[in-house]
Amino acid sequence: MATETILSLANPVFSCYLFYVSLLTVKLMIMSLLTGFQRFKKQAVINPEDTFLGAEIKIDDDVERVRRAHLNDLENIPPFMVIALAYLFTNPSYKVASNLFRLFTASRFLHTLIYAVFVMPQPTRAILFWIGFVITWYMAIQGLLTFNF
Amino acid sequence: MATETILSLANPVFSCYLFYVSLLTVKLMIMSLLTGFQRFKKQAVINPEDTFLGAEIKIDDDVERVRRAHLNDLENIPPFMVIALAYLFTNPSYKVASNLFRLFTASRFLHTLIYAVFVMPQPTRAILFWIGFVITWYMAIQGLLTFNF
Amino acid sequence: MATETILSLANPVFSCYLFYVSLLTVKLMIMSLLTGFQRFKKQAVINPEDTFLGAEIKIDDDVERVRRAHLNDLENIPPFMVIALAYLFTNPSYKVASNLFRLFTASRFLHTLIYAVFVMPQPTRAILFWIGFVITWYMAIQGLLTFNF
Repeated sequence: MATETILSLANPVFSCYLFYVSLLTVKLMIMSLLTGFQRFKKQAVINPEDTFLGAEIKIDDDVERVRRAHLNDLENIPPFMVIALAYLFTNPSYKVASNLFRLFTASRFLHTLIYAVFVMPQPTRAILFWIGFVITWYMAIQGLLTFNF
Repeated sequence: MATETILSLANPVFSCYLFYVSLLTVKLMIMSLLTGFQRFKKQAVINPEDTFLGAEIKIDDDVERVRRAHLNDLENIPPFMVIALAYLFTNPSYKVASNLFRLFTASRFLHTLIYAVFVMPQPTRAILFWIGFVITWYMAIQGLLTFNF
Repeated sequence: MATETILSLANPVFSCYLFYVSLLTVKLMIMSLLTGFQRFKKQAVINPEDTFLGAEIKIDDDVERVRRAHLNDLENIPPFMVIALAYLFTNPSYKVASNLFRLFTASRFLHTLIYAVFVMPQPTRAILFWIGFVITWYMAIQGLLTFNF
């Protein structure tokens, strides 16, 4: 494929990329809602001006757990969004690329579920982290092998 | 519009997108300056090697407030930068898209102003957060409806 | 150059951009490995379910140092990845653009080395931070001057 036409909806890999970027954006935004929900449920806030509805300034384990899951997303999802775009220019097959997008997205949703909603024993969370992590490494290495420094 | 020509300066929506990406980058970089300024003003640092100018290792409320505003930006601005690019491929009108970019950017600047410079009572900060948050959701949902999974 | 052909591998600046995006992704992923390595070495974890291999729940200075270096990367690298893409549309020369990508990437690798592996006295880390910081500002300002708001 001419690289000029990679970033076109006529390219099914690109349309698929945009779909999972949209879904991962929803996933990231859900983390903010989840933090707000836990802060409300546990009545635990961090700023003095946030106590106006009766909550107290305190550190709560469940709130911190959601915040750690959120930070883990920030460490992994925005880099994935960018490297997956670069990966499109390594000319991957639709089958491989679309399944990597799906697997990454599923692993991140499940990672949060296991980390911050229904806490499960390790190594469940570690495995889910590594699925997305290896996919990101794979795309980055494909990029290093394809592009000119 | 042919989707091949969306990412062209001849497309006013794309040029507008690039302008607000540039402005939001400036906004993110200002947060680092603001943190440095507060650390200097309150003489509060976190690393032993940073005490060379006389500051002490301590946790300061005003420094932490800036850092929370910065983290809130990191949770919202990089995802917006990516989803807004995807949103360009949903074929939005210039009027709608450009105003969403402007409103998002303005809400984030004001959010920091209210959170970390001139602290104001809630729900001011919550409202400013939700303006940017709803715009991001809107773009993500448009993406989910437009692109193929 | 017609702006339609900027995002093509036939454009050496774009190929170079994609290479450094790949390398910076590797760099970000290394931070997760470094955190895991320090947590294992110091036997210091944060979640109760992570103690299954014998580690304890505690805050360790070396772990926190790596985490601060990681957060500093998150504050600077994803914005760079996006603003550098916008910068491609300001029509920079290959020589200037490619060297800015190289310098930014080198400064971030060295920043982590000095911050979290071989700790060196200030202002070493500050200088390395400012190299990447100024490059990001430069690209953002070029963007503000080029694109239409």
